[in-house]
Amino acid sequence: MTDRGPGAGQDAGVEGEAALSALSELLRDDMQACNTAIVARMDSPVALIPQLAAHLVAAGGKRLRPLLTLASARLCGYQPSGQVARHVNLAACVEFIHTATLLHDDVVDESQLRRGLASANAVFGNKASVLVGDFLFARSFQLMTEDGSLEVMAILSKAAATIAEGEVLQMVTQNDLSTSMERYLEVIHGKTAALFAAACRVGAVVAERPATEADALEGYGTNLGMAFQLVDDALDYAADQRLLGKTVGDDFREGKITLPVLAAFEAGDEAECAFWRRVIEDSDQQPDDLDRALELIAATGAIDATLRRAADYAERAQASLRPFPDSRIRGLLGEIAAYTVNRGR
Amino acid sequence: MTDRGPGAGQDAGVEGEAALSALSELLRDDMQACNTAIVARMDSPVALIPQLAAHLVAAGGKRLRPLLTLASARLCGYQPSGQVARHVNLAACVEFIHTATLLHDDVVDESQLRRGLASANAVFGNKASVLVGDFLFARSFQLMTEDGSLEVMAILSKAAATIAEGEVLQMVTQNDLSTSMERYLEVIHGKTAALFAAACRVGAVVAERPATEADALEGYGTNLGMAFQLVDDALDYAADQRLLGKTVGDDFREGKITLPVLAAFEAGDEAECAFWRRVIEDSDQQPDDLDRALELIAATGAIDATLRRAADYAERAQASLRPFPDSRIRGLLGEIAAYTVNRGR
Repeated sequence: MTDRGPGAGQDAGVEGEAALSALSELLRDDMQACNTAIVARMDSPVALIPQLAAHLVAAGGKRLRPLLTLASARLCGYQPSGQVARHVNLAACVEFIHTATLLHDDVVDESQLRRGLASANAVFGNKASVLVGDFLFARSFQLMTEDGSLEVMAILSKAAATIAEGEVLQMVTQNDLSTSMERYLEVIHGKTAALFAAACRVGAVVAERPATEADALEGYGTNLGMAFQLVDDALDYAADQRLLGKTVGDDFREGKITLPVLAAFEAGDEAECAFWRRVIEDSDQQPDDLDRALELIAATGAIDATLRRAADYAERAQASLRPFPDSRIRGLLGEIAAYTVNRGR
Repeated sequence: MTDRGPGAGQDAGVEGEAALSALSELLRDDMQACNTAIVARMDSPVALIPQLAAHLVAAGGKRLRPLLTLASARLCGYQPSGQVARHVNLAACVEFIHTATLLHDDVVDESQLRRGLASANAVFGNKASVLVGDFLFARSFQLMTEDGSLEVMAILSKAAATIAEGEVLQMVTQNDLSTSMERYLEVIHGKTAALFAAACRVGAVVAERPATEADALEGYGTNLGMAFQLVDDALDYAADQRLLGKTVGDDFREGKITLPVLAAFEAGDEAECAFWRRVIEDSDQQPDDLDRALELIAATGAIDATLRRAADYAERAQASLRPFPDSRIRGLLGEIAAYTVNRGR
């Protein structure tokens, strides 16, 4: 994957989605039980809560994170005892935490509003998004309490704190081109990889497997999450995505510091660096600036650089699966990592 | 307390605060340990988190909710064993949950922004308030996990869900004068009484007292919380508060449905009802409208009606303490309930 050109994103996306679909299909019963649990547990006598939650949760998406919990549990040989399917309930927990962070992530600042950016929460408003996110977050802890494992609670509450830290860090590095690579990686670890890692580790924990297997799955989740977010950040500047009618340039408009921008800035000459400072640091963007940014990013190989790094993480994710005997689930998890790309969030 | 006139609020406030101060003083060591725990556990390598949290948490306030946990635990005879002071850590948890809800409560909608209302989060922005609130919420669950009691986790995660439901319900009843009394009481139970109740119950649980005592303290907390919020809602329309330089009319400007408004609307003649519909339902407010509202509320005895209901809850709170033998803590908890008013949130 190291010598792929720009546009590799979509190919990887298609193949990655095939592996994802195959894994969902293989774990169809678990996934259906998880969907049922999600719908049942997001209910509330306050009607707006299930309405708004349904907007995100029930409407679907690929459910990648709960799938990771279910697959990890099954990879570790977990068998539900009696009526209690712990992996299903905890997969629902993971999805609730993810959905809560999505809802809160959509809350826009006054300043962003002024720049005229609409957000998904436009339908219900900022406040509703925040409060329903809080409800889902609280509900996820109720589900964990019902599950009763302190180890699981420690994993998921730590992940929740790390996500919030990552999101805050992303906010404070916004518009700051002096952000180091290390800091950027910390941001994407917090905002994405931490929950992937926790989702996987929880699967090993319910199967009551030794710590080495839990560590291995956590490593898989961490590296998959890093790869996933890097590709996501690359696709936001992939000019040919726009040809396919997909949104490009959201990160650009927000002045978000991602690897494509950092790489293009580092490789840029004086005029190019001045351009990046104006559009990212000063948030002074003209109608043609996105096109210019896409050109610069393509010309400096910044997409390539981002995808190469994603490929490194993907390889590490695959390597993390080595302790497990060969199986269909292991194979599919490996494929998902290899192709990495999944936009279905 | 049933025949007190308007303005009773402040007198009650002074006496209530004296009892509160006395209880804080009696439990000074516990309160100091709790403050230390709060400051230590809101720390994060992401500097903005302790900065913003300090804005609300470390800056103080009366810390009523953690005080309730500490007092309940001590009332039940709790003695920390060794280095672990469970009541202190859980009191910090309770304060984190409260602070998270305060931060999220300050988040404003686009529509509200347009109406020109500033909020406390103006310094840091909506997004920072949301994310730091999330961090504190996650951190509170980490603290609970360290404590290790599933019973405590069930109490506090349920309270957190109930708070979110109450806040959503408050949002959907906003500007709606057809809101029933029952619905209003449901809102204030969720937004305020649920956490008071949980804070108290947790104290009994760490002391490992029988369920009857936990139920009694939960009853105390519920009724105290209801009284507290009713008085809070009354003071927002207490004209003489304004003479003292305090803010009056926040609820009015937001079109919040509180008992003073419901009572004045119910008691109003045709012209008065038209006035309420315009200012609350249509959010069409002119500069003199707050004065008119204060006059109508005073004239219809709506403050009185609200304080009478608060007094009923306060009496029930006192009655809830009957199972406990006489003690200084019980006496002060009773006084706090009797005088009810506490603005120090």
